[in-house]
Amino acid sequence: VRFELLGRDGGARLGKWVTPHGEVRTPALLPVIHPGQQVIPAREMHDKFGVQMVITNSYITWRNPALRERALKQTIRGLIDFPGPVMTDSSTFQMYFYGKELEVDNATIVSFQRDIGSTVGTILDIFATPDMTESEVGQAVDTTLHRAREAQPHKGEMGLALPVQGGTFPALRERCARAMAGMDAAMHPIGGVVPLMEQQRYADLVHVIAASQRGLPAGRPVHLFGAGHPLVFPIAALLGCDLFDSASYSKFAQDGRMILPDGTAILDELEELPCACPVCSATTARELRALPTSEREAQLARHNLHVSVAELRRVREAIRAGRLWELVEQRCRAHPALLDALRSLDAHAGWLERREPLSKPSALFYTGSETLARPDVQRLRARLLERYRSPCEAAMVVEHAPRPFGRTLGGKWAHARAHGVQLLVKTPFAAIPVELDEVYPVAQSHEPRLWDRDAGKGFTRFLDAMLAAHGWKLVTEEEVAALPAKEGPRLDDARVRATLDVQFGRGAAEALLRAPVRFRKSATTGRVRNVFSEGEHILSLRASDGYASLKLAGARRLHAELPPPRLRVVVDADSAPFQREGRNAFAKFVRAVDDELRPGDECLLVDDADRILACGRLALNGDEAASFRHGVAVDVREGVVSRGSADEDGEGLQPV
Amino acid sequence: VRFELLGRDGGARLGKWVTPHGEVRTPALLPVIHPGQQVIPAREMHDKFGVQMVITNSYITWRNPALRERALKQTIRGLIDFPGPVMTDSSTFQMYFYGKELEVDNATIVSFQRDIGSTVGTILDIFATPDMTESEVGQAVDTTLHRAREAQPHKGEMGLALPVQGGTFPALRERCARAMAGMDAAMHPIGGVVPLMEQQRYADLVHVIAASQRGLPAGRPVHLFGAGHPLVFPIAALLGCDLFDSASYSKFAQDGRMILPDGTAILDELEELPCACPVCSATTARELRALPTSEREAQLARHNLHVSVAELRRVREAIRAGRLWELVEQRCRAHPALLDALRSLDAHAGWLERREPLSKPSALFYTGSETLARPDVQRLRARLLERYRSPCEAAMVVEHAPRPFGRTLGGKWAHARAHGVQLLVKTPFAAIPVELDEVYPVAQSHEPRLWDRDAGKGFTRFLDAMLAAHGWKLVTEEEVAALPAKEGPRLDDARVRATLDVQFGRGAAEALLRAPVRFRKSATTGRVRNVFSEGEHILSLRASDGYASLKLAGARRLHAELPPPRLRVVVDADSAPFQREGRNAFAKFVRAVDDELRPGDECLLVDDADRILACGRLALNGDEAASFRHGVAVDVREGVVSRGSADEDGEGLQPV
Repeated sequence: VRFELLGRDGGARLGKWVTPHGEVRTPALLPVIHPGQQVIPAREMHDKFGVQMVITNSYITWRNPALRERALKQTIRGLIDFPGPVMTDSSTFQMYFYGKELEVDNATIVSFQRDIGSTVGTILDIFATPDMTESEVGQAVDTTLHRAREAQPHKGEMGLALPVQGGTFPALRERCARAMAGMDAAMHPIGGVVPLMEQQRYADLVHVIAASQRGLPAGRPVHLFGAGHPLVFPIAALLGCDLFDSASYSKFAQDGRMILPDGTAILDELEELPCACPVCSATTARELRALPTSEREAQLARHNLHVSVAELRRVREAIRAGRLWELVEQRCRAHPALLDALRSLDAHAGWLERREPLSKPSALFYTGSETLARPDVQRLRARLLERYRSPCEAAMVVEHAPRPFGRTLGGKWAHARAHGVQLLVKTPFAAIPVELDEVYPVAQSHEPRLWDRDAGKGFTRFLDAMLAAHGWKLVTEEEVAALPAKEGPRLDDARVRATLDVQFGRGAAEALLRAPVRFRKSATTGRVRNVFSEGEHILSLRASDGYASLKLAGARRLHAELPPPRLRVVVDADSAPFQREGRNAFAKFVRAVDDELRPGDECLLVDDADRILACGRLALNGDEAASFRHGVAVDVREGVVSRGSADEDGEGLQPV
Repeated sequence: VRFELLGRDGGARLGKWVTPHGEVRTPALLPVIHPGQQVIPAREMHDKFGVQMVITNSYITWRNPALRERALKQTIRGLIDFPGPVMTDSSTFQMYFYGKELEVDNATIVSFQRDIGSTVGTILDIFATPDMTESEVGQAVDTTLHRAREAQPHKGEMGLALPVQGGTFPALRERCARAMAGMDAAMHPIGGVVPLMEQQRYADLVHVIAASQRGLPAGRPVHLFGAGHPLVFPIAALLGCDLFDSASYSKFAQDGRMILPDGTAILDELEELPCACPVCSATTARELRALPTSEREAQLARHNLHVSVAELRRVREAIRAGRLWELVEQRCRAHPALLDALRSLDAHAGWLERREPLSKPSALFYTGSETLARPDVQRLRARLLERYRSPCEAAMVVEHAPRPFGRTLGGKWAHARAHGVQLLVKTPFAAIPVELDEVYPVAQSHEPRLWDRDAGKGFTRFLDAMLAAHGWKLVTEEEVAALPAKEGPRLDDARVRATLDVQFGRGAAEALLRAPVRFRKSATTGRVRNVFSEGEHILSLRASDGYASLKLAGARRLHAELPPPRLRVVVDADSAPFQREGRNAFAKFVRAVDDELRPGDECLLVDDADRILACGRLALNGDEAASFRHGVAVDVREGVVSRGSADEDGEGLQPV
C-alpha cells in the first residue's frame, strides 16, 4: 500500500491510496458490509454508488463455520463479492458493544484476516470508553500497543490497521499515536469515538482527533472508526481524517431514520422527503412507508448511502476548491454541539496552521465570528504584525472599500504616504495596508456589511496591536493633511516590497530588490507580473494569489542574505544532482524543511552543506516531508544547471 | 382560486392554493416553460419532479402567430402540455431585459391571457430597476397601479396577478402593495427583484420583501418574481413568500452551471459532482462533459430542477417541523451577502414576531449570534421583563445547567426562594427563572458551551434589564445563605403561576388560581398536567410546549378579570351560535382579534357585546384573520353550551 497527496485544504488531504486490490481516493467512506447479509449488495455499492473500498467484520466471519470456510476458500473479497480492496475489523467493537471478552485472541484474528486475503486487517485493540479513568485507559493503551507489536509477525502481506486509543485523554491519545507511528502499519484508525458521536460530544471528538493527529505520521491514511454520519465528515476531514466507515446507512434504515447532510429525519414524521437523491426524487414519504419492511429498509439504506457518498464528493470537491473551511462552517450550524466543535478548533490552530496552504483557489468567506479563528486569518494577522514593514510614523483607517483596495484608494494612499501616514482598510480579518491588496486572503475575501461584536472587538484589538508593532500613531484624514509632505513611494513599488516581506519575512524585499529595479506589467490588468533587478529576472507575481514565484536569480539573493534554515529545504546527496537539473524533489529524499515553511511556500533547495541547488514550491510541510514515502515534496522551478528563462534581458521594462 | 393556511413557521406559511386547474401546495416553485421549446417537457416536470404549477410567457405566445393560434385553440395548458394550473407572465420582464417598449399594451395582453385560459394572468406592470430615482419609481408605481385597475374588466374568470413594484424604496413598495391589496387579485408577485438577486444584494431583497409584505393582504399568495435559485428560497419563505418562479434551471444549464442549495458550481471546474440527485448519482463530471451539447444541457437542467424542488420540499418540511429559522440560518452561511440578509431580518422583527407562533414542535438551536434576533427569542426576553412576576428581592445566577432546569436545580431554587432570592439560569437566550423550565423555548433550546461575544454581552445586558425590571439585587451563593429564611413556595406551584403570567400577561395567574388549587400530575413524568381551582378544572399544561390549554372554567375567570380586548377574538353574530356549541371559528367571521395575540395563543371567543362564547386556540394573527377568507381562525376547545369534560371532580388530586 502507498499513500500520496493529490491536494489539500485546512488539515485535510485529497489522497490516492494504492492497495494491491485497487485504488481509493480519499477522503472516502468504507461502508460496513455484513459478511452474511447485505442490505445493499457490495457489488451494487461499487457499480452504482462509486464505493471504492468496504469494511467487513472478520470476527463474524471467523465465528460462523460456513462463512469461515467460504472466506478461506474464496477470500473475503470473494465472499462478499466486492471487486475492490476490503478492510476487515477485528472483534474490538463487538467486545465493547456486548461488554465482554470474546473467544478469539489477537494473534488468531490477525492471522485469520491475513488468511482470508483482507487488504487491510485490524488488530484486536482495546476500546477505551469515555467513562474510564485515566489509569484504566492508560492500561488499555498499553495492551493495545502490546497487541500491535504482537501482530507484526502474523500480518504477512496484509496491510495492518493500528488503531489509536486513549479515550478522551489527549496525552494518552498522543502517546498511543506516537508509539503506533513507530511500527509498520498501512493506516491508523482513531478508535473509541463512537460513544462521543452517539452523545453528540463533537467538541470532544475534535480534541480526540487533534491529539491523535499530533502523534500520527502524516504520511499514512487516518481512519475515523465508526464515523458514518455525514454530519462529521467535513470537520473530521478538515482535521486530516482520510477514511470513514460505518454501518449507519443500514442501521438507520432499520430504525426508519433518514441520514441528511445536516441531521437525521424520521420517516414516520415526514410528509415530504427533504432530499434530492434518486430514492427521494422518485418516491414520496407515503409510498416509502407503504413498502414491505425489507424493501423499505433497502430503499432507506440506499437513500442513506446516496447522501453519504455525495457528501464525501462534496468534501473532496471543497478540498480541491479550497473551500473546506466554508463547508465546515456551514455544516457546523446544524447543531449547537457542532458549533462547539467548530469553536473548539481554535485550540488546535497551531497544528492546523502548519498544514494550511499559503493560499487557495477560492475566496475566503466570513460566515460568522468563528471565521476569525481560521488559520489563514490568524496567519495574515501574525504576518502583518511580524513580517510587514512600513516606514510610516502614523496610520489612518478607511472604514470600507471595495476590493482590490488599490484601485479605489490608490490616490488616498499616495496622499497619506506622502505625509508619512500608512492607509489601512478596516475588515473583520485585519486592518490591512492598502498596498497588500493583491495577496491572499486580502484580495480574495468577503465579509458582511453588518458586523457582529466579535468582528468589531477583534478589529479594534488588532488595530491596537498594529499601532504598537509598527510604532504608528493613529491619525484622522484632517490630521494627515496637516502633516508635512514629501515625495512618497509609488503604489506598485510599495506593493511588491510589502508582498515580499510578508511572504518571505523581513529583509526579503531588501535582499531581492537591489536598484535598479524594473517591472513588467500585464497589458490587460496593469498588474506587475515580472520583477527585474540589476537586469536579472528575480521573480514573478502570480495572478492567482498575488504572491511571488522565485526565479533562481531571486533565490540566490535570498540564499545569500538570509541565514539557514530560512526558506531552506535540504535534500539528500543522492537526490541533489537531480534538483540541480531542475527536477522535482521527492518526499523520501528530503532531509529537513525550514519549520516556518508552509505548503505552497516558495523554498530554496540546498544540499547538506547549504549549497543552493534549485528553487521551487513546497507541496508538503516539514512533518509531511519527513513522513510521506511517495510523491513530490517540492515542485522545482529552476535548478542551478537548468537553462535560465528568456526574460532576463528585461526588455520593455518600466523603471521604478 | 382560494388560499388556505395549513401550517406556519416564522413568517412562512404552508398553504393550499386551490385553482380551477388544480391544487398547489406552497411554498412552491413554478418553473418557467418556454411556450415554444422545452428543455425538460412540462409533463415530465409534473410526472417526475412533482411540479404542480408552471409559468410561461404570454407575450412570446402572442407574438408568434403559430403559437398564438394553437394557444387560442388548445388553451395555454394544452399548448405546453401541462396537466395542472399555468400562470402566464406579460412582457414586463422582456421590456426590462431589452430596455424598450414592446408592441403590446396592457389591455391586449391581459385579454389574451384570459382568452388562452391562463389560470393566473399578469398585468403589464412597470419594472422599476434599482438604479431609478425615487420619483421615477413613484411614477412607475402609479402607472402599474393604473394598469392594475385597467385590467380588472378584462380578466374574466382568470385569476389576476397584481405585482408590487417600488424599486428599493420601502415607502413606495408599501404604498404599491397597499393599493394592490384593495383590488381583486388572485395573488401578488413582488416584482423588480431580479437585479438585486443578480448583484447578490440579498439584504436589499429582504428589505424589499418586508416592505411589500407590510402592505400586502396576508390572505393571498405572495410570489417572488424571478427567484429560482434555492439560495433565496428559505429566507424568502421565512418572509412569507409562497411562490417562486424562474428559468434558472435551464439558463444555468445553458451556461454549464449547476445549481446547489448553497451556491453554484461550474461543470467545467468540477472533478466530482457534489450532489446526490439522480443525475449526479448516476453519472460523473467527466461523463456529463462528454455528452453532446443539447443532452448535457438537458441533464444539467434536470439536476438543477431536482435540486430546486428538493430544496422546496426541505423548506416545507422545515415549516412543518418548526425548523425554518434553523434552515435559514444554516443556508445564510453560504455567502457573506446572505449573512447580511440574515442579519438584516432584525429590522423586520416586529412584522415577523406577529406571525411567529407561540411555540414550535422542535427545539430552538443557537447557531450563532444571529439567533438572538429571532422573534421567539426576543419575545421570550420581552415577556420575562414585562409579564413574568416574582416576589423576590434578589436574584442569583447559575452559570450552566442541563435541561429541564428544575430537575437539577430544584433544591437550589427552593433554598434560594426560601431566602427571597430568585434563581436564574444563564443562557444566551435570556437569564431564565428556573421555574419557567418547561415552556417553549426554555425547555426546547440548545446552545453551545463556547459563547461568542454577542452572546456574552447580550446576556449581561439582559440580566441588567431583568434586575431593573424586577427590582432585584444580584447576590452570590454565599450571600443567599446569609439572608433570613422563611418557608418558600413549591416549585410546581411557582412553575404554574409563572407559566400563566408569561403566557397570558400579568394578573392571569391570580385570576385563574383561586385557592384551593390542586394539580393532577403525569404518573410517568411527574409533571403537572391538569390544574383545578375551587373544584373546577381550569386548564391543562401541554407536554409539547409547557403552556396552558384553557378549559372554559379558566376562560370565564380570565374573561371576568381581564378587560377587553385582552385575549379576545370577536366573532360575527352569524357565527356566534356555532362557537357557543364548541364549533371552530372561520376566518371570514372574525371581526377583531386582540393585537397582542399570536398564532398558537389561547383565546376567548366573544360576541360584539363581549359575552363569552367559547375558548380555543388561535391559528391566525389579527391581520391574517382579517384577510383570509377561507379556513379556520380559531380551533375552539369548549363552547359555553358544549358538554364539560369529565375531569371536573378533581378526584385523586394533589393539594397545593
